[in-house]
Amino acid sequence: MEINTKKTLPGSIIEGFKDVSTSTIGSVMDKMGINGIINGLKCLIPGIRIAGSAFTVKESIGTLGTYTKADFPVGQAIDLMEAGDILVVDMGGQEVSTMGGLGSLAMKLKGVAGMVVDGGIRDVEQIISQGFPGYVVHICARSGQTRVKWLAVNCKVTICGVMVNPGDIIVADDTSVAVVPLEKAGEILKETRRIEELEKTFEAELEKGSTFLETSRKLGVI
Amino acid sequence: MEINTKKTLPGSIIEGFKDVSTSTIGSVMDKMGINGIINGLKCLIPGIRIAGSAFTVKESIGTLGTYTKADFPVGQAIDLMEAGDILVVDMGGQEVSTMGGLGSLAMKLKGVAGMVVDGGIRDVEQIISQGFPGYVVHICARSGQTRVKWLAVNCKVTICGVMVNPGDIIVADDTSVAVVPLEKAGEILKETRRIEELEKTFEAELEKGSTFLETSRKLGVI
Amino acid sequence: MEINTKKTLPGSIIEGFKDVSTSTIGSVMDKMGINGIINGLKCLIPGIRIAGSAFTVKESIGTLGTYTKADFPVGQAIDLMEAGDILVVDMGGQEVSTMGGLGSLAMKLKGVAGMVVDGGIRDVEQIISQGFPGYVVHICARSGQTRVKWLAVNCKVTICGVMVNPGDIIVADDTSVAVVPLEKAGEILKETRRIEELEKTFEAELEKGSTFLETSRKLGVI
Amino acid sequence: MEINTKKTLPGSIIEGFKDVSTSTIGSVMDKMGINGIINGLKCLIPGIRIAGSAFTVKESIGTLGTYTKADFPVGQAIDLMEAGDILVVDMGGQEVSTMGGLGSLAMKLKGVAGMVVDGGIRDVEQIISQGFPGYVVHICARSGQTRVKWLAVNCKVTICGVMVNPGDIIVADDTSVAVVPLEKAGEILKETRRIEELEKTFEAELEKGSTFLETSRKLGVI
Amino acid sequence: MEINTKKTLPGSIIEGFKDVSTSTIGSVMDKMGINGIINGLKCLIPGIRIAGSAFTVKESIGTLGTYTKADFPVGQAIDLMEAGDILVVDMGGQEVSTMGGLGSLAMKLKGVAGMVVDGGIRDVEQIISQGFPGYVVHICARSGQTRVKWLAVNCKVTICGVMVNPGDIIVADDTSVAVVPLEKAGEILKETRRIEELEKTFEAELEKGSTFLETSRKLGVI
Amino acid sequence: MEINTKKTLPGSIIEGFKDVSTSTIGSVMDKMGINGIINGLKCLIPGIRIAGSAFTVKESIGTLGTYTKADFPVGQAIDLMEAGDILVVDMGGQEVSTMGGLGSLAMKLKGVAGMVVDGGIRDVEQIISQGFPGYVVHICARSGQTRVKWLAVNCKVTICGVMVNPGDIIVADDTSVAVVPLEKAGEILKETRRIEELEKTFEAELEKGSTFLETSRKLGVI
Repeated sequence: MEINTKKTLPGSIIEGFKDVSTSTIGSVMDKMGINGIINGLKCLIPGIRIAGSAFTVKESIGTLGTYTKADFPVGQAIDLMEAGDILVVDMGGQEVSTMGGLGSLAMKLKGVAGMVVDGGIRDVEQIISQGFPGYVVHICARSGQTRVKWLAVNCKVTICGVMVNPGDIIVADDTSVAVVPLEKAGEILKETRRIEELEKTFEAELEKGSTFLETSRKLGVI
Repeated sequence: MEINTKKTLPGSIIEGFKDVSTSTIGSVMDKMGINGIINGLKCLIPGIRIAGSAFTVKESIGTLGTYTKADFPVGQAIDLMEAGDILVVDMGGQEVSTMGGLGSLAMKLKGVAGMVVDGGIRDVEQIISQGFPGYVVHICARSGQTRVKWLAVNCKVTICGVMVNPGDIIVADDTSVAVVPLEKAGEILKETRRIEELEKTFEAELEKGSTFLETSRKLGVI
Repeated sequence: MEINTKKTLPGSIIEGFKDVSTSTIGSVMDKMGINGIINGLKCLIPGIRIAGSAFTVKESIGTLGTYTKADFPVGQAIDLMEAGDILVVDMGGQEVSTMGGLGSLAMKLKGVAGMVVDGGIRDVEQIISQGFPGYVVHICARSGQTRVKWLAVNCKVTICGVMVNPGDIIVADDTSVAVVPLEKAGEILKETRRIEELEKTFEAELEKGSTFLETSRKLGVI
Repeated sequence: MEINTKKTLPGSIIEGFKDVSTSTIGSVMDKMGINGIINGLKCLIPGIRIAGSAFTVKESIGTLGTYTKADFPVGQAIDLMEAGDILVVDMGGQEVSTMGGLGSLAMKLKGVAGMVVDGGIRDVEQIISQGFPGYVVHICARSGQTRVKWLAVNCKVTICGVMVNPGDIIVADDTSVAVVPLEKAGEILKETRRIEELEKTFEAELEKGSTFLETSRKLGVI
Repeated sequence: MEINTKKTLPGSIIEGFKDVSTSTIGSVMDKMGINGIINGLKCLIPGIRIAGSAFTVKESIGTLGTYTKADFPVGQAIDLMEAGDILVVDMGGQEVSTMGGLGSLAMKLKGVAGMVVDGGIRDVEQIISQGFPGYVVHICARSGQTRVKWLAVNCKVTICGVMVNPGDIIVADDTSVAVVPLEKAGEILKETRRIEELEKTFEAELEKGSTFLETSRKLGVI
Repeated sequence: MEINTKKTLPGSIIEGFKDVSTSTIGSVMDKMGINGIINGLKCLIPGIRIAGSAFTVKESIGTLGTYTKADFPVGQAIDLMEAGDILVVDMGGQEVSTMGGLGSLAMKLKGVAGMVVDGGIRDVEQIISQGFPGYVVHICARSGQTRVKWLAVNCKVTICGVMVNPGDIIVADDTSVAVVPLEKAGEILKETRRIEELEKTFEAELEKGSTFLETSRKLGVI
């Protein structure tokens, strides 16, 4: 297994992303020509938002009996993760489980912020009761043992058609998962905040009785 | 944008539909040869039922950069809506957002009863916390800006293969969305109520200890 | 309608399966070469686990008007079911409802433990409020009347590609539905329990501060 | 296996349908409110058109080992078919083969006109070299032995969402398969011919140099 | 219906594209960051290549009875087309026919080079026998009458996720459909030709007995 | 890139498989409990059958820009192939091209018998005109350059859910692709031949005028 290290942005930027929605990030990245929104994943714990630094894993998937126990070194990878990371696993969309309740508990205890899986996870009851957030393609009791091989840690991966580089900021909420390129994170956060503040003003106007059209004209937006 | 007006049925009929399920409406429309059931939409707020008058919108969808800001006059449409309406948007099933938290708040404040979208919505966290009901194909952070053009308001639309005319009664619950043709609404409500009363009697018999088969025979049903 | 009887395992074995997860059962059946995991069904009531004896039904599905009322003898089948059974219906994946709130109430009152449907159910609001567990392909208000014919009770069926024999143990939780072959149920339960106990030790080690890798090595697992 | 007999229309009507396209039949049935067009099937032998009387079969499909040899009485059904029939098999869309090269040869020798299968066939090389036309969902080497049970012959079936009654006229060409209700076949043939004659005049005008718009206006069509 | 005019490139550039493959164009556009390849369309006449100037049409699609005859002015659009154009129709992927044998004949007679349809066509037998090339999502006998409304001619459209501007060069062969932006057509043609000449040298080397690896090294490619 | 060697069966066995159909091989492997049939691939050159020894390749797929030129060493792999091999590429079903006209020519010239690709190929016009057989999931002009990384040659791979070991016999015709395990190839060939001889007798009986049912009884089959 190829193991790389990743850059991690200052905590203050990551913290900042916990307060902005993927919907607004999507609008901002649209204007910058960045393809970074992943829609349609199953959200294990609705009603929360996570943000963190992408710790990426690339896997190869086969039928039962293709690989050995040694090919699936979950523990080795978890030990490399740090508080604030988000596990991002590229399984090419296959319906096989790459993570269960023991791995999620270990990550939870280390302060890992959540996981995004372009494939499957199992033990979903345990994972939810631990309060470990996940955004996944499949929930399935098809074990990764002898079906999964870990190829590389912290390499470029593709999640549902979106490229993720190790260290990119992952923001996930009930609407979608946003992949914010590390080198543009500051700029994107700033513009996203600006829009969300404007939206708060817009909401306040609506609640005061202004119509949508009046408010749009008044604030010069949307 | 072509703007039409719509007829609206008396509130008493719409109120009546809040007490009957889409499941029974489906059975009644089956017998009348009406194709009016939409299954498989994502329900944003489970455990409730809405009924209202269809305010329809037909959109054209393109890739990012296809349309202009002026093509997406959300505010204009919202200002035309009235309390008790349900927004029904025909996007041809595309994964693009036509509505976010500002629009839903404006509709909520006007008394709009909910929305049915053959496409996507975003800001789902806000929409749910506002308590604004929605039944949609996609939840996605892909903004409608420059991707969506509003073609017409209150025209015939097609939602997941079902035709909706402006002013039709929309009833939606956890099971499905029923499109009740305006001109047959009274008849359908009456027959639906008759069956649901019979079903309540049936339930009472079951709870008294009668078997399903005995009850069926006794009540002469199902 | 062809009606067969089924064997039922001792209650103690069925009770035992209520304490083990489908995820672990999946791992155990992998090692035994048994294809018995059904993923991707909609779970009506999350957060619980059911286990019971498969009472199977095979149906034929057509468009509206294909069959008669007599072809859909829900009551007759329900009267044959016993406490602890789980209804397993093979509809070939079609989007038509085979069960509604009256049937589920009758089953609930008899002590039936739940249902697994390779097709649709309706009245989902009622079924959930009755607390009757279901794992289904479709939630839809398309009535089975004149669309469904019951061909046989307690025959071999195929649910999402997995064969179910009458009397097999069905275990279902938020992760998946496991079909445990009747004749191997004891062996599978024993091995599943052994692994889950090991996993509890693993969890305890993690919570004491051991890393995933250390714990794996110490316990000689995963 | 339930075996019914079917009515067959006079050969002159069936012969008449060999000269008209499914495209025009579709337009005519649209105006009559008849849902009888099946699109998207794989056509084994392009460039021909077949018309015949529907000999329907309804099957039940399971995984390998579900049924016995006796459940799949291909020979019995073929012996019941007559020259001019078209075999129409309802398999619910499953990827399993219901027909191979021996069955197709036997049908070919009896003068059966072709087959429409809502499921799979195998031995496609042989079937094509025999010149036996087929319109199918799947081409697959997954044998029907122990996977297929024939339930009934000449009953109502549903093929890709379209109801077929025994004796209905089946017309199939490279565009689609049309199911013409037996009792309306004469009327539909007459109107289809009228339109196709008009279209021939239209074509002749175009070839003489008239524009599409001029021709439409002159002939008062489309 | 909104009608716009389009620019058309000099015939020499369009002619040039008839000699290069969509596969090589795809490689060249990859390097330029242009998303212009449409895969997976059904090719009506295999073994040929077409190139022409995009004459775009945007349609709105509904169920039967949604629109009027006047909404579907096929003739008006055909009369606006010129020799060398390729009809490009955006139907949002719906299974409804927008073109039949009369329209294709009229286009053929005018010298229109072919059609690309993100939706359906019918009369495929006639269209093929006329030798009119088409690349389409659906072949289907579901008429556009009352289901299709033409919204605009020569506007921006989206075909299977790729934006097409009126006047863009469309190149289509058995592998795919390439949408070459009008303003970069010269540059793309030049680079595509350079690569294809290199590939011809590569082929000649292989046929002389050189291995793939030797040839790659010798020519400094792939 | 991990490079392994493979065993190859004697030519006489491979030659033998050129005379038997995948349909019959499927029946024989059904009885032996072997999951070795791949249905639904696109066949580039209909009307032929190929048989050869599986030369397997496992790839990792990303979006444009994920990998380098060095990650896609087509030439190196082709130089390792031998006459009679069939290239079998596991791309996890992604719509990206792993092979074009230069590679296919090089393979053709070496006597490679064909290719099976769980992903895409391009330059299909050239490949067909070279007469190089292929069975593929996608035909697409999306180049593998910077999207594909070759991980291993002659390892276990999974093609559309079927495991292929290096050296397994691949047989492909218009019906499907059969993966015959190397160690059981002799046994499978023998039984397949036996059945196909019986089928020839069956055909001869039918052509002499015997009915399907009579022939089945006489020969004691199907």
